[in-house]
Amino acid sequence: MKDMSDTSLTEIPARHGKAVRVAKGRKLKLINTYGTQVVDTWAFNANDLHEFMSMEHTRPHIGSTGRIIPKVGDILRNNKRQPILTFLEDTSPGIHDTIIAACDRYRYKFLNYQGYHDNCQDNLFAGMAELGLTPPEVPQPLNMWMNNPVDKDGNVGWFAPVSKPGDYVLLRAEMDVVMAFSACPQDILPVNGVGCKPVSAQFQVI
Amino acid sequence: MKDMSDTSLTEIPARHGKAVRVAKGRKLKLINTYGTQVVDTWAFNANDLHEFMSMEHTRPHIGSTGRIIPKVGDILRNNKRQPILTFLEDTSPGIHDTIIAACDRYRYKFLNYQGYHDNCQDNLFAGMAELGLTPPEVPQPLNMWMNNPVDKDGNVGWFAPVSKPGDYVLLRAEMDVVMAFSACPQDILPVNGVGCKPVSAQFQVI
Repeated sequence: MKDMSDTSLTEIPARHGKAVRVAKGRKLKLINTYGTQVVDTWAFNANDLHEFMSMEHTRPHIGSTGRIIPKVGDILRNNKRQPILTFLEDTSPGIHDTIIAACDRYRYKFLNYQGYHDNCQDNLFAGMAELGLTPPEVPQPLNMWMNNPVDKDGNVGWFAPVSKPGDYVLLRAEMDVVMAFSACPQDILPVNGVGCKPVSAQFQVI
Repeated sequence: MKDMSDTSLTEIPARHGKAVRVAKGRKLKLINTYGTQVVDTWAFNANDLHEFMSMEHTRPHIGSTGRIIPKVGDILRNNKRQPILTFLEDTSPGIHDTIIAACDRYRYKFLNYQGYHDNCQDNLFAGMAELGLTPPEVPQPLNMWMNNPVDKDGNVGWFAPVSKPGDYVLLRAEMDVVMAFSACPQDILPVNGVGCKPVSAQFQVI
C-alpha cells in the first residue's frame, strides 16, 4: 500500500458513510466535531476483507480478563485474533459501545419509521463502494461515543454521548487496513444527543 | 421442510459439533447432561444461510431497552431483526453468554497450546458439513451456560457454569432453521467447570 501524504481533514457528512485506506503504522484520528455524534467504526484487512476488526474477538483479550469497552492502550483484534488497530489516545471520557449492531433498515421499521431511513449498515456499504470495495459481511462495529451502559443485571441503557466538541480518538493501524465510518443517522432515540440531531464528524490520516 | 418424527435424543460428543434441521414451530430441547458443559449455539435460516441468529441484533430488542443475556420469553432475532427462535423454558439459573466469540485455533495459540486443539469454530463447520452445508460466516454464538459476568465497569469474568446435571433450555423455531451446536472443548480455562473437563451434551427435536 502506498504511503499516503494526504493528512487533510475529511468530513463524514451527517447521516452518511466514508471509508479510507490506512497503511500499517499510520494513525487515524477520528474527531467528534460537535461532541454529540456517534460514529460506527469498522476496520478490514486491506489485503483480505474477510479479516476484519471483531468486537467479539477483542473483548476477551482486553483488560485483565476481558472488557466490553476498549480504551487507551488496548489492542483491537481481527477475527483471527491478530492486532489490527491499537487505541492510542482518547480525549473523551471513554464511553463507547461494542454490543449494539449497526442500525439498519429493519431497525427503523421497528421504530415505526415509514419509508427509507439512512442507516449505518447501508452507510458501511456506500463508504466502501467509493473505494470500489464491498464488505463480505457486516461486523459488529465499534460504536465510538455511543453511550449504552450495561448494568449489573445485564440491562442496556440508551443515553446521549458524554463527549464534548472536538473530542477525538487516535488509532494506529497494525496492518494495512480499510477503515469505514458511519455518522449514525439515528434521530428517533437520543443516540446522537438529546436533540436527536445527527451531525457530521471528521477524520484525518496522520 | 418435512415434519421430523425423530424426537430421539442426539448426543453432541464431548469437544465436537452437531447440527440439525428444525422446522418452523418445532422445539429444540438442549440438555446439559452433566451440568458443567457450555454449548455454543447457532441458528441459520434453512432457506438462506446468510440469515442467522445474531446476538448483536437480539440484544437491543430484549428486556425493556435491551439486555445482554436472553431469558425465558425472549425472542431471538436474526441479522434482519426477524424472530428466528423463541426462548421458551430454562431450568438452569439462566446464566448464558452472548459477548465472547466462539473459541478457535487462534484462541488456543493465545493460551500457549501447541498443535491443533478442537475448537467451537471448527465444530460449527464440521457439524454443518454433516448436513452438506457450509455456514457463510461465523456469527457470535449464544453460549449456553457460559458464565462470563460483566461488572459495572465492563470487566468480564471467567467462571464455571452454575447449571446442574440435566438442566435444559427449550427453544421454538420461528422459521425453518438449521441449528448448530458445539460442546465447547475449552480445557485450559474453567469454562466447562472447575475440573476443565469438556463432556458431551444432548439435544432433542420435539
